[in-house]
Amino acid sequence: MKTHTLLMPLDMHLHLRDGVMLENVAPLTAYSFSGAIVMPNLVPPVSTLEDIKAYKKRIMAAVPNDYFEPYMTLFYKNYDKAFLKSVSEEITAIKLYPAGITTNSEGGVSSFDIEEMRPTLEAMSTLNIPLCVHGETDGFVMDREAEFMSIYEMLASNFPDLKIIMEHITTKEAVAMLDRFDNLYATITVHHLLLTLDDVVGGMMMPHNFCKPIAKRPEDLDALLSVALEAHPKVMFGSDSAPHPQDKKESCGCAAGVFTAPIALQLLCEIFEQYNKLDNLQAFVSDNAQNIYGICPEFKEIILEKRTFVIPEKYGNVVPMYAGQAINWAIASVD
Amino acid sequence: MKTHTLLMPLDMHLHLRDGVMLENVAPLTAYSFSGAIVMPNLVPPVSTLEDIKAYKKRIMAAVPNDYFEPYMTLFYKNYDKAFLKSVSEEITAIKLYPAGITTNSEGGVSSFDIEEMRPTLEAMSTLNIPLCVHGETDGFVMDREAEFMSIYEMLASNFPDLKIIMEHITTKEAVAMLDRFDNLYATITVHHLLLTLDDVVGGMMMPHNFCKPIAKRPEDLDALLSVALEAHPKVMFGSDSAPHPQDKKESCGCAAGVFTAPIALQLLCEIFEQYNKLDNLQAFVSDNAQNIYGICPEFKEIILEKRTFVIPEKYGNVVPMYAGQAINWAIASVD
Repeated sequence: MKTHTLLMPLDMHLHLRDGVMLENVAPLTAYSFSGAIVMPNLVPPVSTLEDIKAYKKRIMAAVPNDYFEPYMTLFYKNYDKAFLKSVSEEITAIKLYPAGITTNSEGGVSSFDIEEMRPTLEAMSTLNIPLCVHGETDGFVMDREAEFMSIYEMLASNFPDLKIIMEHITTKEAVAMLDRFDNLYATITVHHLLLTLDDVVGGMMMPHNFCKPIAKRPEDLDALLSVALEAHPKVMFGSDSAPHPQDKKESCGCAAGVFTAPIALQLLCEIFEQYNKLDNLQAFVSDNAQNIYGICPEFKEIILEKRTFVIPEKYGNVVPMYAGQAINWAIASVD
Repeated sequence: MKTHTLLMPLDMHLHLRDGVMLENVAPLTAYSFSGAIVMPNLVPPVSTLEDIKAYKKRIMAAVPNDYFEPYMTLFYKNYDKAFLKSVSEEITAIKLYPAGITTNSEGGVSSFDIEEMRPTLEAMSTLNIPLCVHGETDGFVMDREAEFMSIYEMLASNFPDLKIIMEHITTKEAVAMLDRFDNLYATITVHHLLLTLDDVVGGMMMPHNFCKPIAKRPEDLDALLSVALEAHPKVMFGSDSAPHPQDKKESCGCAAGVFTAPIALQLLCEIFEQYNKLDNLQAFVSDNAQNIYGICPEFKEIILEKRTFVIPEKYGNVVPMYAGQAINWAIASVD
């Protein structure tokens, strides 16, 4: 049987939520990933040292063993340097949300006033804290990410020593930015390597493929594949796996988010094999992230094998992407 | 109280379905419209003289009075002239669906081979039977209508005596076609004068705003408004009101269709008044259609008044567009 080995996979953009949902989903990521950047958009958001420590503790309590590192993030606000210094040992990055742009982002940034943000962003540069950004304006849904490029330009050029990660990019415009600014990086989800808007509203309406940023056009998908499959050194895997209870997804006014945590590595094997690029998958799911963030995850070896794997209908009360569908790769062992 | 009178409103694109659904929705249209072009996409589609007569009989049985005319349509296939002549008294138009493009369209046209279609389309020209077209390719969801323009060009230029109605147009490309070919006309829905893709997937996912063709970009909405508000003489109101039971809309894999029949005139008053174009509404909802189709509906006078009207949560088991929302116009009387 054909197998493929991945060492220390990292999910550089993950939603673990809290409470019962955290207990449901954290073990699924901890099973197959060495670590994950954990998003801070709880209610209320993670914004104090106590929040960070307490959330990390709850995550570790939900994870069945010690071989998983939650890389904690702080919810972006304008913070002073002393505070940032005091939390810098506990966080790996700070996550910036434009206000109201996605789930639990109401307390985010409502105007990108560079001078108001300067003290915080300069302190982050000095302290070497990366800035992770949900890069969407409040414009027309298909244009939101492309419209945000001017804000990335402003941030990248004003703070050349700040590492800026364009999270879950979905457009050719964002891909093009990677080679324009040294300090811009990106994460890409697995679902954005598979879906276009056609998979959301092209046939029936598919709530489990509905996320923010929404999947875009075929040419955008091609652009994302071009950098992911080559494991462009500034690009990392980040699932943006975003669990919602089934009743919140399959109802009028469905919430945005695709749940992929337990099937991401299998789907990535399938995609990379399809394009004869399996050799590049290690860099995409771990090595690039280690280099960009300067992190050294604990050893974990995942062996995947090429055989039919039927994606479960549910994980607890959460429906994954492609529920009930057969794919070609499965996890054989974790060591 | 401000009022506005409409005479003999016509809905030039309507889905009445069959059975219990027909009994639920037909009276709602018959209440406020003098007549409607009734779509033939039943299962199986309306494609024989017996089908047409029997369906019309079922519609009339579902309608509580005689002041409503269902203008019957035949499902497009390649028919011979003798057959078309035999049904020409019973139908007002023939509706063409590309195969599989929307609800119950599986038996539609799978390739636009002009020579295969020629005998049918020439017979229709001679018999003065208009061709109503669902103009979408099977391409990317936001491009399907624009991509279909080359097929409209081919049809319009090859059959200059055939009246071709571009149904439920949603794009600036379709609007531009109106002035390029004398024999191209269009219907526009009320929901496409209100929605963009933002109202479908821009915030939460909104199944009751999900339809085919899907609502497009802001500039497309502007183009549709420009011809509707001016009551461009080649443009008619056609609701494409498409009822589905609530459980088929509010579930994983929701069906396409927006239900507007009982609220369409009220919403149209609101839109036309907002742009100070109420004087043009009569032409948009009736006079243009009378001229284009050469039909003379029976007298019906609808008086609308400007007051708050809360759209019902449901009509039977069908959820209308804007359910539960307050709008500014209501029907005061029907005579």
